[in-house]
Amino acid sequence: MPLSPNPEHMRRAIALATENILAGKGGPFAAVIVRDGEIIAEGANSVTTTNDPTAHGEVNAIRNACRTLGTFSLAGCEIYTSCEPCPMCLAAIYWARLEACYFGSNQQDAASAGFDDAFLYEEFRKSRDARMIPSAQLLQNEANQTFAAWQTLPAKVDY
Amino acid sequence: MPLSPNPEHMRRAIALATENILAGKGGPFAAVIVRDGEIIAEGANSVTTTNDPTAHGEVNAIRNACRTLGTFSLAGCEIYTSCEPCPMCLAAIYWARLEACYFGSNQQDAASAGFDDAFLYEEFRKSRDARMIPSAQLLQNEANQTFAAWQTLPAKVDY
Repeated sequence: MPLSPNPEHMRRAIALATENILAGKGGPFAAVIVRDGEIIAEGANSVTTTNDPTAHGEVNAIRNACRTLGTFSLAGCEIYTSCEPCPMCLAAIYWARLEACYFGSNQQDAASAGFDDAFLYEEFRKSRDARMIPSAQLLQNEANQTFAAWQTLPAKVDY
Repeated sequence: MPLSPNPEHMRRAIALATENILAGKGGPFAAVIVRDGEIIAEGANSVTTTNDPTAHGEVNAIRNACRTLGTFSLAGCEIYTSCEPCPMCLAAIYWARLEACYFGSNQQDAASAGFDDAFLYEEFRKSRDARMIPSAQLLQNEANQTFAAWQTLPAKVDY
């Protein structure tokens, strides 16, 4: 299906991002979620004022949209974000089952403004052991017991 | 600095994950945040019961730790997660400035239990235009005005 974005929804995301910094609420990023041509939820970056490093514009918009709809799936919806998503937000867009992503500024624009997500995209291209944050596996067998219990659980909500 | 994980912290994360599914609160995943050898916050997956697709164990633990400490940076802390982080959680770990990540089950174990994050790691290796969720840029110049405003803002909290 060809994409058919509505520039007015992007204008709203951009306006929210600008309002956000002028109000001192967080970084210069915001997003809106659209279903059937209508904005159903909005979100702006609030990392520094809510003390939540995951509170990027897209994540906040996704959480607000899910609260509005009462569901953990945003299938049938699209996101308009004032800037190309970082890896956290891109993955959140997948988990939320959004069907298209429109962005205003791109990664290079963000880097010019001092927000360099490119290093994080680079980290994902590396093997686990080559990444900057060290990691190690432990108690694998004990951990897998949780999965074994999950698989035999009589009532569970798959997702 | 060599990693020196404490298996008891991983046991706690695993126990939380198992408790989580038995209580019907979400998927089989949980994590704890440790500072100076002590657990300062915990989190378990609550995607299906809080209708929040971002509410993975690691993200919930990070949010709880930041709330506890009153900061958006978890520098000096480590995370123990019952299962290797998905891309969203891995990126959140970077944004939170966690300094090490210990995991119990790995991606392959998770896939065997029906949780296949490998496709998402594959998406990150692709160029933007080759990914499953279509994306497009629009209103780049208008969007960049927000960054221009940010850069001239007299009082702002960098992060």
